[in-house]
Amino acid sequence: MVNSLISTPFVNRDRLAQSIARLAQIGQLPEGGVRRIAYSLEDIQARKFVQRWMVEFGMSVRIDAAGNIIGRYPGKFPQASALATGSHIDTVPNGGRFDGAFGVLAGLEVVRVLSERQIQLNHAFEVIVFTDEEGTMIGSKAMSGRVIDDSPYYRRPDGTDIQTCLERVGGNWNHINQAQRSSRDINAFVELHIEQGPILESMGKQIGVVEGVVGQRRYTITVKGSSSHAGSTPMHMRQDALVAASKVVLAVNRLANTPGQQVATVGSMQVSPNAANVIPGLVEMSLDIRDLSNLHIDSLMEQLGLDIKAIAADTQTQIRLEPCLQNEPAPAKPHIQQTIVQVCEELGLSYTNVPSRASHDAQEIANFTDMGMIFVPSESGISHAETEYTSPEQCAQGANVLLHTLLKLDQHYRCH
Amino acid sequence: MVNSLISTPFVNRDRLAQSIARLAQIGQLPEGGVRRIAYSLEDIQARKFVQRWMVEFGMSVRIDAAGNIIGRYPGKFPQASALATGSHIDTVPNGGRFDGAFGVLAGLEVVRVLSERQIQLNHAFEVIVFTDEEGTMIGSKAMSGRVIDDSPYYRRPDGTDIQTCLERVGGNWNHINQAQRSSRDINAFVELHIEQGPILESMGKQIGVVEGVVGQRRYTITVKGSSSHAGSTPMHMRQDALVAASKVVLAVNRLANTPGQQVATVGSMQVSPNAANVIPGLVEMSLDIRDLSNLHIDSLMEQLGLDIKAIAADTQTQIRLEPCLQNEPAPAKPHIQQTIVQVCEELGLSYTNVPSRASHDAQEIANFTDMGMIFVPSESGISHAETEYTSPEQCAQGANVLLHTLLKLDQHYRCH
Repeated sequence: MVNSLISTPFVNRDRLAQSIARLAQIGQLPEGGVRRIAYSLEDIQARKFVQRWMVEFGMSVRIDAAGNIIGRYPGKFPQASALATGSHIDTVPNGGRFDGAFGVLAGLEVVRVLSERQIQLNHAFEVIVFTDEEGTMIGSKAMSGRVIDDSPYYRRPDGTDIQTCLERVGGNWNHINQAQRSSRDINAFVELHIEQGPILESMGKQIGVVEGVVGQRRYTITVKGSSSHAGSTPMHMRQDALVAASKVVLAVNRLANTPGQQVATVGSMQVSPNAANVIPGLVEMSLDIRDLSNLHIDSLMEQLGLDIKAIAADTQTQIRLEPCLQNEPAPAKPHIQQTIVQVCEELGLSYTNVPSRASHDAQEIANFTDMGMIFVPSESGISHAETEYTSPEQCAQGANVLLHTLLKLDQHYRCH
Repeated sequence: MVNSLISTPFVNRDRLAQSIARLAQIGQLPEGGVRRIAYSLEDIQARKFVQRWMVEFGMSVRIDAAGNIIGRYPGKFPQASALATGSHIDTVPNGGRFDGAFGVLAGLEVVRVLSERQIQLNHAFEVIVFTDEEGTMIGSKAMSGRVIDDSPYYRRPDGTDIQTCLERVGGNWNHINQAQRSSRDINAFVELHIEQGPILESMGKQIGVVEGVVGQRRYTITVKGSSSHAGSTPMHMRQDALVAASKVVLAVNRLANTPGQQVATVGSMQVSPNAANVIPGLVEMSLDIRDLSNLHIDSLMEQLGLDIKAIAADTQTQIRLEPCLQNEPAPAKPHIQQTIVQVCEELGLSYTNVPSRASHDAQEIANFTDMGMIFVPSESGISHAETEYTSPEQCAQGANVLLHTLLKLDQHYRCH
């Protein structure tokens, strides 16, 4: 830290913006977005690009069995457990240029600043590019030892098997367990990401100090009524599955709007037979519910179960609720949150505590070591869309918080 | 009527059941239903079959420009305006064997009874097979002079133009106006049909005395909200189009359940983007509303408009209601209803007054002459399905009511 005392180090805003723009050229879409699906030619090209940069900025680079790219900037104490940041560079089919890529490129910018200023930390500093965040999250799952031994489960939607996919990016399904790491290996992991939501913008805050990644449960709700003629069936003899489904949607919405930080959404709905002149006999819909507390989700789902029972009785329908996904909440370590807060105050940046309601690689890493996350605002809260935007200034603010959090954590963790 | 005084004429129940079974072989489906789409090879084959029967039972047969088959059993007074019955023999893709075909075959059974008993009516008696009831209703529309001069409007879903279709069944689009008839030509039209609803069965009644065919309006309702991430968008910042749409569905249902005979249905709904982790940004749905009174529909729609305005404000969405179909109510002539009631009482059949909430060719014919309709029960109210069922006894009861209504109307109308 001797050098940093001379003058406070800051990232180079324009250079970071240029990196983001440069990477966005790979898989660029007409409206400025990016299509860089995991394992695609674009993904592979972008991965090579990032690896070249890592080497250029003085990092050693290795690819683990899950295809994760691990760039390592050496510290003073080679035996010390590392500090790490990272995110992903794959995108959804019509994604933006910030989701994931920003976190990786800000990590590299931090390395560049350290390197230029000849700052050597006590701990090694790793920048990790995780494999397939937008799909299976196999990269971060493998690092936390949570990949299940069932290769068809990880097959791509296009049918490509996981072994082929991993080979394309330098990984190896047969040795996937070798990607696993532990807290003896990584002291702390701090991910920088765009918020992908509107809270920071609406509150006029520059930085989000993430309290944790919320737990998420997904259910399929099936409503079975009786399909019949929309003209000749009198109202009192109907078992209209869409009327019942609508009541369920509103019950979900009512519960989600009770006090608390939870969100709950019915995002998809299929109506059958779905014809103007036929009373719907069957409706299938999704339910997605998220909160930082498992207990709170439990209690909301218990209430929903009662509501659904009453709706089924009232509408003469049968309603089934089947779980189809459960991700546990991943709280951020309090001392890392405190460090981020302290950095914001020192840098004069406004901040607020927020839950992350979207999934991130950090939630997997939290399974084996201390985790923290830093958010920067997303314009209008838009993400997973070509119009996703965070200004160069906002990106630089986030990267500066990452840099200074890293400097503080380097002091926090013992290195011998 | 001299002969009929000797002994009351009745239809032959088993023979009628056999006719229905025989016609159902054309386009027969595995579960006992029928696929006989208008203008298809099956439809053409069935039409030939019916024409052969007509000739066999002593009728003259002609095909008009709309492809309607008109079988005519001559009366004593050739100049007198005819009495008529009829229905259709085309079906929906997975239809039953009774919807339409029953009315035609019961008409032919009535002719057979008259012919066997050598009963000659004062008026000619026509049995009409209307073209494409399940689609454009072009047959009955042409007869009432209500075909619009826009051939693409009548194009089949498979792209076949109407001229080609009509040629297949012996019609001619270029002379479609020649199919038009008037009350100088037909004194009265009485259609016998299965109820396609559950009212008669649930009330334990044998005959439905139809008060008229309800008016029907169809609308497209579009709800525009804002699509965003189901995790990262807090509840109070959502413009969830599906939440708004659900409120509309329930508002429609509430109005439909107010006192009155109306029915209203949201039968189809498309949610966009329709993914479990995305808040719905757009919902498009159908609204179908029917009642015997236009004024009553007007007043319900006025209330719905107010409800929708409040829902849009409450949910921060835009909701548009666009009319896409309007069929006027077609009341049955009171004296024909009274005649049917009288016949039921004389034959010892239980009956009730019912609106027809499904569309029928009779509603078109009501535009130019006296119209009545007779319903028989549909098992469990099921129609437009392979499991559609009405027993031979119930079919015979309906045909007997048709026969005796015809005999009474033959006395009612002047013949010279």
